[in-house]
Amino acid sequence: MSDGKKIYKPKPVSGFPEWLPEYRAVELAWLDRLRAVFESYGFCNIETPAVEEVDALAAKGGETEKEIYALSRLHADEDDKKESRLALHFDLTVPMARYVAQNFNGLVFPFKRYQMQKSWRGERPQKGRYREFTQCDIDVVNVDALPLHFDAELPAVLAEAYQALDIPPVELHISNRKIVVGFLNALGVADAAPITRILDKADKIGADGVLKMLAAENVQDDIAQKALALASIKTHDDGFAEQVRALGLSHPLLDEGLSELSFVMNNLSHLKSGSVIADLGIIRGLDYYTGTVLEARFAGDMGQLSGHMAIGGGGRYDDLAGSFIGQKLPGIGVSIGLTRLFGLLMDKGMIVPLAKSPAQVLVLLPNEALRQTAAATAQALRARGLRVEMYHRDAKIKNQFAYAEKKGIPYVWIIPFKDGQPHEVKNMATGEQKTADLASFSIP
Amino acid sequence: MSDGKKIYKPKPVSGFPEWLPEYRAVELAWLDRLRAVFESYGFCNIETPAVEEVDALAAKGGETEKEIYALSRLHADEDDKKESRLALHFDLTVPMARYVAQNFNGLVFPFKRYQMQKSWRGERPQKGRYREFTQCDIDVVNVDALPLHFDAELPAVLAEAYQALDIPPVELHISNRKIVVGFLNALGVADAAPITRILDKADKIGADGVLKMLAAENVQDDIAQKALALASIKTHDDGFAEQVRALGLSHPLLDEGLSELSFVMNNLSHLKSGSVIADLGIIRGLDYYTGTVLEARFAGDMGQLSGHMAIGGGGRYDDLAGSFIGQKLPGIGVSIGLTRLFGLLMDKGMIVPLAKSPAQVLVLLPNEALRQTAAATAQALRARGLRVEMYHRDAKIKNQFAYAEKKGIPYVWIIPFKDGQPHEVKNMATGEQKTADLASFSIP
Repeated sequence: MSDGKKIYKPKPVSGFPEWLPEYRAVELAWLDRLRAVFESYGFCNIETPAVEEVDALAAKGGETEKEIYALSRLHADEDDKKESRLALHFDLTVPMARYVAQNFNGLVFPFKRYQMQKSWRGERPQKGRYREFTQCDIDVVNVDALPLHFDAELPAVLAEAYQALDIPPVELHISNRKIVVGFLNALGVADAAPITRILDKADKIGADGVLKMLAAENVQDDIAQKALALASIKTHDDGFAEQVRALGLSHPLLDEGLSELSFVMNNLSHLKSGSVIADLGIIRGLDYYTGTVLEARFAGDMGQLSGHMAIGGGGRYDDLAGSFIGQKLPGIGVSIGLTRLFGLLMDKGMIVPLAKSPAQVLVLLPNEALRQTAAATAQALRARGLRVEMYHRDAKIKNQFAYAEKKGIPYVWIIPFKDGQPHEVKNMATGEQKTADLASFSIP
Repeated sequence: MSDGKKIYKPKPVSGFPEWLPEYRAVELAWLDRLRAVFESYGFCNIETPAVEEVDALAAKGGETEKEIYALSRLHADEDDKKESRLALHFDLTVPMARYVAQNFNGLVFPFKRYQMQKSWRGERPQKGRYREFTQCDIDVVNVDALPLHFDAELPAVLAEAYQALDIPPVELHISNRKIVVGFLNALGVADAAPITRILDKADKIGADGVLKMLAAENVQDDIAQKALALASIKTHDDGFAEQVRALGLSHPLLDEGLSELSFVMNNLSHLKSGSVIADLGIIRGLDYYTGTVLEARFAGDMGQLSGHMAIGGGGRYDDLAGSFIGQKLPGIGVSIGLTRLFGLLMDKGMIVPLAKSPAQVLVLLPNEALRQTAAATAQALRARGLRVEMYHRDAKIKNQFAYAEKKGIPYVWIIPFKDGQPHEVKNMATGEQKTADLASFSIP
């Protein structure tokens, strides 16, 4: 069995990040804070499997589809061929939509859920791109109709969530798919998707790049120019509508999109000035969006430093969940790209690590004869709600203090060496050491 | 792009469980409690990727190896062939060991970590077996030597963790691999693994089944009988050693195993009487264990109901982490099989669901004109630390109350319809409705 063991030298796998404990502690604290914000709005938690049947993911991913990771057993046999093919989900929206459709009768609508899980995309490794990443999503799905108010409420919760993380300021760039699709329809383009996919790349390839790609797709130059003009409109209020109308086109879908985006912008006017931008260049890569679409980016200096990369996003999908069961189940969701956000700040040295251990107190073990006393002391402190480690062997006291120092444990507890002596505790930050009472000790 | 969309009817994927929100809320509460126990002993959290390179998993899994899920991109191209092959981890011990080896210089030893993540095994679907399951692991890894005290401390933490879940009583079955291997060596069997693998199946196939399988493997009958006699020894104290010696065999490794297990049993004597059993039939399926091995099972009636299935386990692995970098890095860990545990109790109807929503208060929206007032009220309550949902549209008040009822939201807040009127709040459990002060309202 264990013959032929190869020596395998471990190395990081590109695109699959993992962090040292002191940084993971920060990530965990972030997850706690996001959970608190989401629950404060009444979103319940769900978790869906890492995998979906390939058929559930197919035709939902757009550009992402080719990056899906499929599963197969390392030593597959004939039975495997009879089973449905499974693949790792590439986002949390499609699994949630499938979950809602599948559990329709067990849910109360509007269904408001948050989900904080990993997703996987087999992208080419590059700066800021991960193949495994944690997303923190909130979504609302309702039967038949979903009030437009949610298109403003969810971005507002998203803004509050970013604020809870104590990170540099974030701005929300919002558009509505109906605007660009209606606009292209007005220009006589029936299938907008090939053009919007190219417009979506404007941030990466610039206006000239977009025009070249559109020309290569045989899009007429006047259409390309007008589409680019539309995608360049950005305003901090509902002024975008006037700028769109100045382009001289009209279409019912375009009007609907303009009216919806105006409503959303006006209902977000209570957020910090400048932090919300109507940005008609926002497309989002996934096919399932039908109305409001948004992207979160760092503002100001950090925006520059991060190449204005999206650190979150979302939008409305009127046909996704319902498509599974032939019902109308419109939804809207926003998502924080936690791993990308965290990774960007790690790269810039902007994550301040926490301690390497969650322990608040290290109980020393002066010698083996005192092990029972030390263990009982640790247990008594735990019973009072403290996080306590007992040093594991009778090493030199100096080394035990050094251990507390290295793990960032703020208090060291010294048990009495003889009966009748008092317990003492040392505050590692101030160096102060004083007698302590086991029954009343607490950490300020 | 979206042409040719197939209608995909969602159905549960066998072996990949997911729960309704009111049950997921219980699972989440369990994860919170386990985290609190683990952190109270100073275990830090880490998270490793879902995948490892196949070479890191190979030759670690024993029987599990053939169940490994490998990954490939759905539309793989030539570049994919150049990359290392990736597979989903089948436990959290091998990834942790790889992490320790890889981050050796960034960690402080003894390294104590907890990890609560999913693992995957492509098993045949059957009762109580999952292909995706959450494990909650704690492990200690040290350089060169790891005191035997940890072999008792970790099972004690495990026992405390089960207690924190408020589930039927659990018993820990503990053995030491050195006993069975030393015993077989004393019988002249050099490679114990083929025999121990069969002994491990005793719970499933019974003594006769074990003897038949051993005979089929050409194991001499007297060896088979003695091995079975050893594996049948179970005592609640260190009396097992005498019973082993009565079998008349001696070997240094056997003696070492007996002495270690006696130490562990004596150091666990403070746990509830009868909850710890020296059980020499415990083998554990994974190849990497070298000393202490243990399994957690429900005791009493629930033990019967669950077919004495393992709901946790673990052991010592002196060569696993070090094998990656050619160092001595002995470790010991225990793991709660959270999904199996939760699934067993779900099957028996023993999980009491929580509310479908985490919201504590639903603020009614009597009419659209009052939306700003309702939203401001909800926000004011949130600012006071409450979890608050605002009803999303001006539905009939009766329907809004029904929504609170269905989602299990315990308080409904009624804003004043006119200036000067007071706010009111209704306790949904008692039916009592009274005036409430926005600035001081709290939930008992």
